[in-house]
Amino acid sequence: HHHQGRSVGIIGAPFCKGQPRGGVERGPDVIRAAGLLHKLQEQGCAVKDYGNLAFEEVVDDEPVGRVKHVRAVGSANHRLSEAVQAVKRDGHTSVMLGGDHSLAIGSIHGHSAAVGELSIIWVDAHADINTPLTSPTGNIHGQSMSYVLRELQSKIPALPNFSWIRPCVSAKDLVYIGLRDVDPEEHYILKLLGVKVFSMSEVDQLGVARVMEETCDYLFSKVKKPIHLSYDIDAIDPSVTPATGTPVVGGLTYREGVYITEQVCQTGLLSAVDMVEVNPLRGQTEEEVQSTVSTAVDLLRGCFGRLREGNHPSDYRLPEP
Amino acid sequence: HHHQGRSVGIIGAPFCKGQPRGGVERGPDVIRAAGLLHKLQEQGCAVKDYGNLAFEEVVDDEPVGRVKHVRAVGSANHRLSEAVQAVKRDGHTSVMLGGDHSLAIGSIHGHSAAVGELSIIWVDAHADINTPLTSPTGNIHGQSMSYVLRELQSKIPALPNFSWIRPCVSAKDLVYIGLRDVDPEEHYILKLLGVKVFSMSEVDQLGVARVMEETCDYLFSKVKKPIHLSYDIDAIDPSVTPATGTPVVGGLTYREGVYITEQVCQTGLLSAVDMVEVNPLRGQTEEEVQSTVSTAVDLLRGCFGRLREGNHPSDYRLPEP
Amino acid sequence: HHHQGRSVGIIGAPFCKGQPRGGVERGPDVIRAAGLLHKLQEQGCAVKDYGNLAFEEVVDDEPVGRVKHVRAVGSANHRLSEAVQAVKRDGHTSVMLGGDHSLAIGSIHGHSAAVGELSIIWVDAHADINTPLTSPTGNIHGQSMSYVLRELQSKIPALPNFSWIRPCVSAKDLVYIGLRDVDPEEHYILKLLGVKVFSMSEVDQLGVARVMEETCDYLFSKVKKPIHLSYDIDAIDPSVTPATGTPVVGGLTYREGVYITEQVCQTGLLSAVDMVEVNPLRGQTEEEVQSTVSTAVDLLRGCFGRLREGNHPSDYRLPEP
Ligand SMILES: [Mn+2]
Ligand SMILES: [Mn+2]
Ligand SMILES: [Mn+2]
Ligand SMILES: [Mn+2]
Ligand SMILES: [Mn+2]
Ligand SMILES: [Mn+2]
Repeated sequence: HHHQGRSVGIIGAPFCKGQPRGGVERGPDVIRAAGLLHKLQEQGCAVKDYGNLAFEEVVDDEPVGRVKHVRAVGSANHRLSEAVQAVKRDGHTSVMLGGDHSLAIGSIHGHSAAVGELSIIWVDAHADINTPLTSPTGNIHGQSMSYVLRELQSKIPALPNFSWIRPCVSAKDLVYIGLRDVDPEEHYILKLLGVKVFSMSEVDQLGVARVMEETCDYLFSKVKKPIHLSYDIDAIDPSVTPATGTPVVGGLTYREGVYITEQVCQTGLLSAVDMVEVNPLRGQTEEEVQSTVSTAVDLLRGCFGRLREGNHPSDYRLPEP
Repeated sequence: HHHQGRSVGIIGAPFCKGQPRGGVERGPDVIRAAGLLHKLQEQGCAVKDYGNLAFEEVVDDEPVGRVKHVRAVGSANHRLSEAVQAVKRDGHTSVMLGGDHSLAIGSIHGHSAAVGELSIIWVDAHADINTPLTSPTGNIHGQSMSYVLRELQSKIPALPNFSWIRPCVSAKDLVYIGLRDVDPEEHYILKLLGVKVFSMSEVDQLGVARVMEETCDYLFSKVKKPIHLSYDIDAIDPSVTPATGTPVVGGLTYREGVYITEQVCQTGLLSAVDMVEVNPLRGQTEEEVQSTVSTAVDLLRGCFGRLREGNHPSDYRLPEP
Repeated sequence: HHHQGRSVGIIGAPFCKGQPRGGVERGPDVIRAAGLLHKLQEQGCAVKDYGNLAFEEVVDDEPVGRVKHVRAVGSANHRLSEAVQAVKRDGHTSVMLGGDHSLAIGSIHGHSAAVGELSIIWVDAHADINTPLTSPTGNIHGQSMSYVLRELQSKIPALPNFSWIRPCVSAKDLVYIGLRDVDPEEHYILKLLGVKVFSMSEVDQLGVARVMEETCDYLFSKVKKPIHLSYDIDAIDPSVTPATGTPVVGGLTYREGVYITEQVCQTGLLSAVDMVEVNPLRGQTEEEVQSTVSTAVDLLRGCFGRLREGNHPSDYRLPEP
């Protein structure tokens, strides 16, 4: 419960081409502006900000089949993968501030390239597991998991700027929390691969505490692999985090969202975090944006040791009159 | 978890005389306009819309004792009872879109006339179990259960246009969920008859998952009677469904409301549903109306097989490159 | 579950100098204006209103160290302590309407002076347990518990107008519920004294029902001491009770807040209640103020026997036609 010397490396990934709505590329800056670095430092973390990635402009990025902005997404994620590898090489827990959720491709790839086999905890209203061939929209932020899962490799066509990707995650090492808007094709895939899913039905049935217990039992009872926590802000209910591109009613409460991070933190295995889909242009008022952004900050604080019961430095002494 | 060929018959009941506020007669049309039919079809249901009932105008409908609009309510429910019987004869699960909750009288009566003994799951902030002699307001939407319960027959005076009603429900076959605004006289009746009640206190204490487990154990451990689900939208918290005539603070969350429908669906016993008290004129903004109506639609989707983890057709095959 | 002849004595404490924001001194009047007395009477309570205390104007009240308004807070609490003693002597359950939470000093002191050893259930976003020497702000509403805890006596310097206070509570007789914004120094104190804390993390983990079970087990398994319930309205989530000085995101739901009072009531041990930090000037709209005030009223109704399943007089008889 005391301050611990966690070391955090922050990467800004101002990228929006995995989906059609402008604004999500401003996520990294608004999350920083809400005081993320200072707050993490205040709770005892050593924080290094690696700044925002500069993504190359891609001209002539026509859809490939239904899939949109393939080359831009491929290129940005390649860049991101290398950045995450550098952060991990420097010994930090990686924090990738998105940007849309297509960035999980590069974040997971880079993380795995640096540390090996991972456990993935994917907190999201959506499964983001469409293949390029099943996606009803063609937006890659709804397909990220399909590119990194070994079991789906044969279902993925070759795509320009995607050849660097090697599937690096096994379906048994993946847990979803918060799902409530899953395409039929995605549901088929989840069942086919036997992926562990705690949809909102299960959160209602079990409560978030048992969901986290079962998540940890499932992932860590045999081998303790480093955790990649991929947190889509739309997992949280739109009454709390409305400033996001694809809000879905019936989400996690603020408290459940934070509880998840507290429990992930307490495993001691957290190695990389994505915080994605914060889109300040999607809030209808300044209050809506602030609530969304400050929730993102609080989720990250929970990832790095902040407890709601309080924290204190281990060397504290009480003053006497 | 797959698409199932459920057959749904929809009856619109644009009636408001069981209570004093205009607008609730528009419920059927706004619920349809929110896409109910298409959404049910999309999830694999065969849907037949029986249209809106035309209720006869009643002139000279002076209060009988304190009870208001007796003749209109009696006549409309007689008409509704016959419509529900027709829907059941046609082999559908009946969906009655209210209108106010006085319509449960005809809906339950017709359902029982068609299929025999029923289990009633009444989801509501209110018990709607005043007799004509205990009702503090005289509004029949707060008295519906008293007319159909066998155990209260001796407490009900003869009323014009009510002579067709035969009490057809036993108190032991009734479960309430969501109560939080119960008149003293109603509380006396509930205790007298030993009715199973999960008020919001019990929902808080047990959680909605155990409430549904205990509801099913209570109703179905001996005999599996067809379920009549009577869902008053005011069971849900007014922050979610404000556009209703008698909102009461401290209600079910959207998630709890949907969870109830998912569990009722999974019994395989659902035979008729009432969705009542959606009043588009009671919303203070268009957003409030939309939230109320789309929640009503989501509750009905949950009744007919929609799962938050997703659904897929049983014959789906994954495309390969 | 029936109406019981509870006897309630209400003290208004229109005081705001334990913190910097004007308006909280209007708490007693707005809570009364929302119909508290009538509603308690309606549910079978005998209510005596002792009116509002008149606190003496203190001139020359310069900070002592960092601690602000020391003399005014000391004097007001002395006055309040005597008022609570009078209410207890008259045989009532004491209800102190604040005003800010520094008033807990006098309320607890007077309560203990009248009835002896107490159990304290402190429902709050904050622990209010800074000593005058640890307080980062100097506001005494964040220090109240430190003055009345025996274990902290040696840490409290002498302060003007505080000499009448005798520490009267043991740390083992104190339970916190709802904490989520705890200073490091406070966290140190809570751990040092081994205080029982159900922060929002524990509420999320255990659920409010088990929190109340464990609270009662912890406090009453050996000796059944009278309960002093000190309820800071900021324990409840700001979406419900925004009109307060130091709102903190992630609070108790309305339902959890009410459930706590129902359970405290059912112990039969409730002897005094503080309802504090309702500040009508901190609401941004009239609706926000009303929601805050009516929640405070509902919490007090729950303290005195109101059940969400309903209540009825024990002599009620059902009318027959
Ligand atoms: Mn996503
Ligand atoms: Mn999403
Ligand atoms: Mn009703
Ligand atoms: Mn109702
Ligand atoms: Mn307080
Ligand atoms: Mn507080």
